Amino acid sequence: MEKILTSIITIGDELLIGQTIDTNSAWMAQRLNDMGIWVHRRLAIGDKREDILSALEKESSVSQIVLITGGLGPTADDITKPTLCEYFNTRLVRNEEALNNVLHIFESRGLPMLDRNIEQSMVPESATIIQNKWGTAPAMWFEKDGVIYVSMPGVPYEMQGIMSSYVLPRLETHFKTPAVIHQTIVTSGMGESFVAERLVGFEAALPAHFSLAYLPSYSLLKLRLSAFGAEKLEVAAEMSALFHDLKNLVADIMVTDQDIPIAQVVGQLLLEKGKTAGTAESCTGGLISSQITAIPGSSAYYKGSVVAYANETKIKLLGVNPATIQAYGAVSEETAIEMVKGALNTLQTDYAVAVTGIMGPDGGSAEKPVGTVWIAVANADTIVTKKHQLRYDRERNTNMAAVYALNELRKLILQ
Amino acid sequence: MEKILTSIITIGDELLIGQTIDTNSAWMAQRLNDMGIWVHRRLAIGDKREDILSALEKESSVSQIVLITGGLGPTADDITKPTLCEYFNTRLVRNEEALNNVLHIFESRGLPMLDRNIEQSMVPESATIIQNKWGTAPAMWFEKDGVIYVSMPGVPYEMQGIMSSYVLPRLETHFKTPAVIHQTIVTSGMGESFVAERLVGFEAALPAHFSLAYLPSYSLLKLRLSAFGAEKLEVAAEMSALFHDLKNLVADIMVTDQDIPIAQVVGQLLLEKGKTAGTAESCTGGLISSQITAIPGSSAYYKGSVVAYANETKIKLLGVNPATIQAYGAVSEETAIEMVKGALNTLQTDYAVAVTGIMGPDGGSAEKPVGTVWIAVANADTIVTKKHQLRYDRERNTNMAAVYALNELRKLILQ
Repeated sequence: MEKILTSIITIGDELLIGQTIDTNSAWMAQRLNDMGIWVHRRLAIGDKREDILSALEKESSVSQIVLITGGLGPTADDITKPTLCEYFNTRLVRNEEALNNVLHIFESRGLPMLDRNIEQSMVPESATIIQNKWGTAPAMWFEKDGVIYVSMPGVPYEMQGIMSSYVLPRLETHFKTPAVIHQTIVTSGMGESFVAERLVGFEAALPAHFSLAYLPSYSLLKLRLSAFGAEKLEVAAEMSALFHDLKNLVADIMVTDQDIPIAQVVGQLLLEKGKTAGTAESCTGGLISSQITAIPGSSAYYKGSVVAYANETKIKLLGVNPATIQAYGAVSEETAIEMVKGALNTLQTDYAVAVTGIMGPDGGSAEKPVGTVWIAVANADTIVTKKHQLRYDRERNTNMAAVYALNELRKLILQ
Repeated sequence: MEKILTSIITIGDELLIGQTIDTNSAWMAQRLNDMGIWVHRRLAIGDKREDILSALEKESSVSQIVLITGGLGPTADDITKPTLCEYFNTRLVRNEEALNNVLHIFESRGLPMLDRNIEQSMVPESATIIQNKWGTAPAMWFEKDGVIYVSMPGVPYEMQGIMSSYVLPRLETHFKTPAVIHQTIVTSGMGESFVAERLVGFEAALPAHFSLAYLPSYSLLKLRLSAFGAEKLEVAAEMSALFHDLKNLVADIMVTDQDIPIAQVVGQLLLEKGKTAGTAESCTGGLISSQITAIPGSSAYYKGSVVAYANETKIKLLGVNPATIQAYGAVSEETAIEMVKGALNTLQTDYAVAVTGIMGPDGGSAEKPVGTVWIAVANADTIVTKKHQLRYDRERNTNMAAVYALNELRKLILQ
């Protein structure tokens, strides 16, 4: 069956000068993909009439759906709406419901309303207006020559609200969407090339409507198996069998067979076993804790962290012996062990993980260069330590260290 | 003077299905912008021959520079390089230096080399090859009909290394680049519309080669003033005067006149005053600490955090009175005050900030709905508390709470 093709156009200079990272497109693509709609082009352009017109022209010639975000804020360049009117040969009119929405928002926040906010209730006459319950700019749905165009604000939670409550359901009833299934395995401990080598036969034998993607992410590797077809049940049955085979092929390096962050894998294991965990972080500075608590419900198994950035904090809150730091340094196996013991003891948890290292750009030495990281994980009976030598910048080193630490914790819980 | 226009093309299905967020484009755009090169289009397409050819055709018709990332990994679909050969009418040949690089990388990691890695040293004959010191896929520089094309791997730190060490310097010598200057003010406490209203006169009086952008980010608002011209010194002098005016206009709401994260603003203040800080985090789960320690050199003023996710951790490590939690709840002004006092005391710092709240999606009540957050900041003499009622999802609520907390800390340090 034919794929339903979508283009995403983002409008706004902030994306072109790199001040804002585009997270909207990924969110939209995921949701569309889940319902069998394929994003095959994403285009970012500035607040410029000719660029917008040329993008609408080009994208509607190759896609059945054109989703547009951005260019609708109260201080936007007032370009997007007039240009849409020009393209769809219509004019701006007042929308009472949108006006009431703006009035209501300003009233409830106790703020006076400005002309530029009132302007946000002016909309193209030929559009179907989608009210914005999350902000002041309404979204607009157009149809022209068999192509659907939706223009939405660029603020992520406003766009997400509008897509979830209106656009996605309406697209689903408008098109006979195919069945698309993705299943993901996360692996660790083997490089992309080697995993690919192992899966050569599996890949070669895949039916044409299946595909396998390799997605490295810090020290982990995601294997995403995708399938596409007319009959949902049929595709699901094929997927089930092939995914089972894939799991068997990578069983020794598999972290999870779900597309979830490693902090959530650890959380699920702790929940299943009715155990608790805590962390003692030096160089990761709270990132591990922040990743664990980003999972809703983590309070059921996570008690907290001592972020012991200063040595005196390691000594005072984790009970690290000053003589240990003196003899071996703060970045050492010995200190990591005392930190993890201290975390178990202070936080009163079943498991703990501790990390100490040098993330850069400064602070390295010949003996302990930037990127040196010691990880220790422990429960009442066992302590496991691991050293890594990372080779990246501060941000990437910190993220790598967090993933390595969570993976060691996962392995210990599984023991 | 004419703008030098660039298109960025990213190749790879992982961006189109939303599994990966594109951070490369923002990084590239920032660097190009700093040297006066304007990114006016960004396009993401899949690993498909026709889509790549059509993108190269179209983008080279509107831009002098076409930068391409992705599609060069060892498990990529082997589409990008043959398609580049087709477009540039050339063929793949072995590059000895690239082969040696691959051999060296595998040797130093103690791994056997695979055919698919050796394939990475095959390159289009007509390209200038840029060796990749950060990975196995070399980059390629092409020129055709006055347009420059550079194809690079999509792994961020590899692309960044190649851009910084080779592509950016070479573009700078190739073009007579104009002077571009951006200066940013970060404000807090006033909505975008109201700031814009205040700046109506300033904006109207701006010379044509200046522009002002409003960039909201969590509870902060960035005002970016940009200028563009042939003579660097001239543009810089105009910018200096106008930026001075802008600062005066928003003096009462200004957080900083640099384009830096609020954690770095706080860090600079602490450094200047020779003071230290610590944090006590409940609902933000380590995010504040992680943002503070993301700044290189933060160990000079930051001692650590107690992430007290569980009540027992609040009691044990921060000395919160169980009776306070019993009487007022963990999310209350009273508990926040005891947390911040506990942090000052335990971490032995000059300043501390504490946050306790309900981030959602569950855990709210009629009295304390999801999004209720109490912040307390303190030094030895003063405690300031603040309540916020956030209205977003877990991730956004957590990020908003972190920014609010850091801003309260900033205000207290300035007192």
